[in-house]
Amino acid sequence: MTRRGDRAGLPEEIAPLLDAVGSPAGPPEKVVRRRLDALVKPPGSLGRLEDLAVRLARISGDPPPRFRSRRLFLLVADHGVAARGVSAYPASVTAHMCRVFSEGGAAAQALGPACGVEVMPVDVGVDRDVGSLSGIVHAKLRRGSRDLSAGAALTPEETSAALSLGASLVRRSSAEEPTLVLTGEMGIANTTSASAITAALTGADPSSVVGPGTGVSGERLERKRRAVRRALERLPSGPSPFRVLQELGGLEVAGLVGVVLGAAGRSTPVVLDGFISTAAGAVAAALAPPVAAHLFASHLSPEPGHRVLLSGLGLEPVLDLGLRLGEGTGAILASPIIDAAGGMLRSMQDLPSARRPL
Amino acid sequence: MTRRGDRAGLPEEIAPLLDAVGSPAGPPEKVVRRRLDALVKPPGSLGRLEDLAVRLARISGDPPPRFRSRRLFLLVADHGVAARGVSAYPASVTAHMCRVFSEGGAAAQALGPACGVEVMPVDVGVDRDVGSLSGIVHAKLRRGSRDLSAGAALTPEETSAALSLGASLVRRSSAEEPTLVLTGEMGIANTTSASAITAALTGADPSSVVGPGTGVSGERLERKRRAVRRALERLPSGPSPFRVLQELGGLEVAGLVGVVLGAAGRSTPVVLDGFISTAAGAVAAALAPPVAAHLFASHLSPEPGHRVLLSGLGLEPVLDLGLRLGEGTGAILASPIIDAAGGMLRSMQDLPSARRPL
Repeated sequence: MTRRGDRAGLPEEIAPLLDAVGSPAGPPEKVVRRRLDALVKPPGSLGRLEDLAVRLARISGDPPPRFRSRRLFLLVADHGVAARGVSAYPASVTAHMCRVFSEGGAAAQALGPACGVEVMPVDVGVDRDVGSLSGIVHAKLRRGSRDLSAGAALTPEETSAALSLGASLVRRSSAEEPTLVLTGEMGIANTTSASAITAALTGADPSSVVGPGTGVSGERLERKRRAVRRALERLPSGPSPFRVLQELGGLEVAGLVGVVLGAAGRSTPVVLDGFISTAAGAVAAALAPPVAAHLFASHLSPEPGHRVLLSGLGLEPVLDLGLRLGEGTGAILASPIIDAAGGMLRSMQDLPSARRPL
Repeated sequence: MTRRGDRAGLPEEIAPLLDAVGSPAGPPEKVVRRRLDALVKPPGSLGRLEDLAVRLARISGDPPPRFRSRRLFLLVADHGVAARGVSAYPASVTAHMCRVFSEGGAAAQALGPACGVEVMPVDVGVDRDVGSLSGIVHAKLRRGSRDLSAGAALTPEETSAALSLGASLVRRSSAEEPTLVLTGEMGIANTTSASAITAALTGADPSSVVGPGTGVSGERLERKRRAVRRALERLPSGPSPFRVLQELGGLEVAGLVGVVLGAAGRSTPVVLDGFISTAAGAVAAALAPPVAAHLFASHLSPEPGHRVLLSGLGLEPVLDLGLRLGEGTGAILASPIIDAAGGMLRSMQDLPSARRPL
C-alpha cells in the first residue's frame, strides 16, 4: 500500500506537474448546496446530479462554465506481459485497433458524436510501426512496455516521459477551453497492469482485484493472477506511487496519469472511464492528493478492482451499464450528464424570483 | 387491472391513432445481436448499451438513423385533487412554473443544452390564464382536471381532445425528423394521478404505489393514499385503459399518452421520463400493445409505483440517479446515451474488416 503524496523516486522534472495541482478553489460544498436548495425545485430532487454540480463548482467556481469542448484522450500501447497469455486476444490486436481508430470505426468514435465528444487517439507505445496511419497522434515512447511479471515494465525515464507527454496533450488542446477532459485507453493485457497497480496502491489481495478483463477464464485467468502476484512480490513494501507506476504501468497508463495531472493542474475536471483509467487516476491522486477532487467516475466496470479504486478515491460512478470495453466509452456516455449538472447552477431561477406575483 | 388492447369506451376519433401503431418493422433481435457481435469489440462488452441498440434497430431498421433533433414535450396542467392537500406545494406553483418555463429558468431548460435537447413547454390545462407568456405552446383544454377522488377527472371528450393534442404536437415537429421524442410533465398533485393510474392498470394495491412525490409524509401522505383509494373504489372492475385515463388522468398525462401514441405511430422512439411519464406510456401501451416496443425508460424514480410500471412494460431504466423532479429531466440526461447506442450500428467496423493485414 502506498502513502499518499509520497514522492520517493520521483524524477525532478515531474515535481512541477504535481505542484501545479492545488485544492479546488471554488466555494465550499455547504455554500454550493445552499445555492442548489434555493433553486426552483424541491430541495435534493435532482439527486446525484446535485453532487456532480457541487463537484464542478468546487473545481471551477459557481456557476461552473459551460464546456466549449469535451475531449477524449485515447492512449494506446502494448504490454510485454501479453506474452504470458493473460488476455483473450493476441497482442497484435492493439496495432489493428490503431488502424480502426485511424479509420474512425471504433466504439469510442461511434459513440462520440451523439455525446459531443471529440476523440483523440494517441500511440504512446504500440509494438508496431503505425506511423503511416492518419488521424492518430504519433507519440510513441517505446514499442510496448516490458513484461511486468519478470521485471520493471518501464524505466524511471520512460515513466517520466509518459507523464510529461500526457500533460502536454492536455496543454496543447487548451485553445478550446474550458474543456472537459475524458480519459480512455486501448492495449491488450492492460487490465493485468491495472490489477497489479490496484493491488499495490490499495494493499488489496491480487485475487480480489484480478478479473476477466475482455473475457478470460480458467487457465488464462490463473496465469493473469500469477503474473500479478509475481509482480507484487518484486515490489518493496510501501512502494512510492511513482515506483508502482514504473514497475507495473503500461505506457498508456502512465500517459493517462500525465493527462490527469495536467488537467487537474489547470483546474480542469477529468472524467475517468473504467478500471484502467481509474487506476491511472488513483496513481495521480496518490502522487498529488488534491487531484481526487478533480475526478469524476463515469461508470462502474464489472472488473472487481474497479470498485476498490473508486471507494479509495471517494467516487460514485454516474452510470452502471455493464460496460467492459474501455476506449473511454463510459466516459463518453457520462460526459453530457456531468456537463448538464453545471447547467443547474448556470441557468436555473431561484425560488424568490419564481415566486414573484404573476 | 386492465386488459391490454381493450378499446371499450374509446371515442371513434381516437381509433386511427391506435391503428397507426404497428409492431416494429426492423430486423428481429437475433439478427441485430449477430451484427453487434461481429463489430470490433469483445461480444457483449458494451453491456446494456447493446440492448438499447437492439431496440433502436427494431424500431427504425439497422442501422438506426442519427436523430436530427431531440425534442422534449413538457406538458403542464393542474389537478383538482390538489385541493385535498395531497402535495407538499400549493396548486398555484403550476402557474408560477409556467412563467419560469417562459423565462427559460427551469431545470429542464438548464439541462437541455448540454444534452442537445430542445424543450417545448405546453400549457394543456393550467388553472390560470397564462396566455400572455411567450415561449410556451398555448393549448389549454380546460383549467385543470376535476378532483379524481370525488368523480371522473375528465370527460371522455376532454380525454379524447388531450390525446389528439399530444399526437398533433409530435406531428407538427416532423420537419426535423428523425426526431427522438422525450416526455416530461409538470403539475402539482400529478403523482397522485399517476399512482391511481398505476394501481388501476396493474392491479397493485394503492399502498404499494403511492409515494412521497415531491416530499409528502405523515398526514399528507395518508390523504394522498385515501384519495387514490377512493378513486379506485369508484372504478368498475377491469376498467378499459381509456376509462382509467378519463377517470384518473390529468390533462398533461392524457396529453402525453397522445404524444406517445403519435410518436409510436410514426415509428419514432420515445424516451420516457420518470413515474408520471411512464404512467402515460403504460396507458398508451395498454391502448395499443405494440407501443411498448417503441419506449425507452430513462431513469428509475424513487417513487414506488415506477418500478411496478417499468416491470409491466418490460423496461430497464438507463439511469439511476435518485431524480425525483419530473419536467423530463431524466429523459434529457438519458437521451445522448440512447442516441449513442445507435451509433454502434452506424459506424463501427466489423471484425473481418478490422483483421485485414496491416
